Amino acid sequence: MTLRPLGDYLATLRAATPLVHCMTNYVAMNSTANLLLATGASPAMLHAPEEVAEFTAISAGLSINIGTISAHWADAMLTATATAHEHGVPWVLDPVAVGATRYRQALCAKLLAAKPSVIRGNASEILALNGLASRGRGVDSTAATEQAVDAAIALAKKNGCIVAMTGESDWVTDGTQHYRINGGHPLMPRVTTLGCGLSALVAGFVAANREAPLGATAATLACFAVAGERAGSNAQGPGSFQVALLDALYQLTPDDLTTFSQLEAIHGA
Amino acid sequence: MTLRPLGDYLATLRAATPLVHCMTNYVAMNSTANLLLATGASPAMLHAPEEVAEFTAISAGLSINIGTISAHWADAMLTATATAHEHGVPWVLDPVAVGATRYRQALCAKLLAAKPSVIRGNASEILALNGLASRGRGVDSTAATEQAVDAAIALAKKNGCIVAMTGESDWVTDGTQHYRINGGHPLMPRVTTLGCGLSALVAGFVAANREAPLGATAATLACFAVAGERAGSNAQGPGSFQVALLDALYQLTPDDLTTFSQLEAIHGA
Amino acid sequence: MTLRPLGDYLATLRAATPLVHCMTNYVAMNSTANLLLATGASPAMLHAPEEVAEFTAISAGLSINIGTISAHWADAMLTATATAHEHGVPWVLDPVAVGATRYRQALCAKLLAAKPSVIRGNASEILALNGLASRGRGVDSTAATEQAVDAAIALAKKNGCIVAMTGESDWVTDGTQHYRINGGHPLMPRVTTLGCGLSALVAGFVAANREAPLGATAATLACFAVAGERAGSNAQGPGSFQVALLDALYQLTPDDLTTFSQLEAIHGA
Repeated sequence: MTLRPLGDYLATLRAATPLVHCMTNYVAMNSTANLLLATGASPAMLHAPEEVAEFTAISAGLSINIGTISAHWADAMLTATATAHEHGVPWVLDPVAVGATRYRQALCAKLLAAKPSVIRGNASEILALNGLASRGRGVDSTAATEQAVDAAIALAKKNGCIVAMTGESDWVTDGTQHYRINGGHPLMPRVTTLGCGLSALVAGFVAANREAPLGATAATLACFAVAGERAGSNAQGPGSFQVALLDALYQLTPDDLTTFSQLEAIHGA
Repeated sequence: MTLRPLGDYLATLRAATPLVHCMTNYVAMNSTANLLLATGASPAMLHAPEEVAEFTAISAGLSINIGTISAHWADAMLTATATAHEHGVPWVLDPVAVGATRYRQALCAKLLAAKPSVIRGNASEILALNGLASRGRGVDSTAATEQAVDAAIALAKKNGCIVAMTGESDWVTDGTQHYRINGGHPLMPRVTTLGCGLSALVAGFVAANREAPLGATAATLACFAVAGERAGSNAQGPGSFQVALLDALYQLTPDDLTTFSQLEAIHGA
Repeated sequence: MTLRPLGDYLATLRAATPLVHCMTNYVAMNSTANLLLATGASPAMLHAPEEVAEFTAISAGLSINIGTISAHWADAMLTATATAHEHGVPWVLDPVAVGATRYRQALCAKLLAAKPSVIRGNASEILALNGLASRGRGVDSTAATEQAVDAAIALAKKNGCIVAMTGESDWVTDGTQHYRINGGHPLMPRVTTLGCGLSALVAGFVAANREAPLGATAATLACFAVAGERAGSNAQGPGSFQVALLDALYQLTPDDLTTFSQLEAIHGA
């Protein structure tokens, strides 16, 4: 099975403007909403136990990010992911800094039971989530992406999901097929919560392309990679980069995405 | 009774720099604070039950937005609005996505009992708040603004307040007098929480122009409409638009507002 | 004892990229993370009681900001500051609007018991924290900086810490040595939470320069003063200013900081 031209997934997203229920960290909420709106999805943030199941059930996709987790939020996330699982709403797990504390590890174990469609993290997070020994320091990736590819594949197989691992190069795998995506810009790690926003955008792409979650995830990473390169070409620093990234995602056409994506199928990874 | 030239309300706001107590959603907090500071009000965000009444009582205005509501926040909002009602502090209700869940409907019913000075929402929200059958999907307006004008007028009469309904055209009514405001830019719905910030800014304008809440509300909408047009004229996308909007609100003079507002009195709406 | 050239402290920060555990208000979280990343520190935001001590213990510095405080957060802050005190992790207190409510005053009294390394506030906050009669209105400084210098010195002596008081001119003192730092730009108070971000950045500088907290704090203030001047020179308003400030902090070299800082030792203050 091969992927469709990546621009097709973006065209489908824009036609559908999928409603993405985002339960994400406080740092990322505003920037995530703006990244989704710029690209063509429709974000909604809410988390109260009194309404979370009702809302997840009418959403096209769900994004779960544990960055600033606390007990009430964790409970609501478990309700939302159970609802998503029950109603067939695709959902994405972003296991922020899962290696940093035992609390995060225990919560992620519970969340995995509700069968995420996609897991999106950096190499440290993917290694930690797969039960390997890496303990990340905070939210930055300290393990080289390449070293963590085996962990990503194992995690995808074990959980029957897509795993997207981002860093200097991005990787996406369903456990059987593997792709590498190049692009982006060195300023990207100097802007906070771009990875968090990417995870929520994956939920939008997968919601709009439900029959093809692997391609939809690859297309999301490619959007960031192509738009990131463009944004970086004129940026003076992380401030102007962040502004230019939103503009570039807004301006990005499906044809551009297909033409400029640096996607490579990896055999025997 | 006619409105004063709209720039007058802005001049009064800038002279008073009213302290606006904002209890708003997590997504909107930063952008709301920046919109108020750029225009000339003084925002403060706090919500703890231990201090909320003490602070509302010394504030010039209060803004309540239920976007990321949960039980503790709802209780504190009821305390704050009761305090505002008791002390004569004007307050604005932004009933985000009130049509989406029963929890929001129940909370808004309680908040209405504390007599908001102004309600600001999109057409879906105004319809839902008025008890009509529209159920919005999330936070976007799906009902045409024009169709909801009757609901806005009814809501204003029922609650003895101003209703501001925003969309491609904005409407403002006190139940008896009605105005339409044109302007703005198609990029505005691609930037998150501009409506939330607008609601808080209405609280600032009404706080600084307490004898004239209808004109103050119209002037706030006109500020966004004029500044939005200017911001959009050079923006490359939603990133640069958001930056330009803050600059345009900061640069907007009272004379500009009076001159370039597209305000129209509507008879027999 | 004299300070090293201020650029030295910035060079040390960039070499160390210290992990700064930030417990700050909702308004400031995103902008604070971006200010730290742009300058060269590594921010992490988390606050759950289940993990906060574990994380503070592995952090290089801690920043505590009470802007949108509530009971759960206050408890977690007391745990984090006790952990920091026990493990020798330097920490910064930002007593936002401490004069505004009794709740804030009581909480700050408890936080002071855990011995902050640095207190960073505006003149109203420093006066209130020192027990003087000033009651700030919200988060703006209403008392002139100069009048509050005596309070800053007294507060530093009483608590055995550095006090950084910011305003049109900034002051920094350890109770014995006092410095004034000029620079910055009139647009800075028109952008929300720059002071909050500054406090967190102080935690990064002090973490990377543990033997010299006075110089590290002065260098942080000077970074904002120099970068703020540069950002303001081309800004059209608070929107473009905020973008340009992040770019300027990113571009600022240690040599620039040493050369362009307006630092003045004050004798007999």
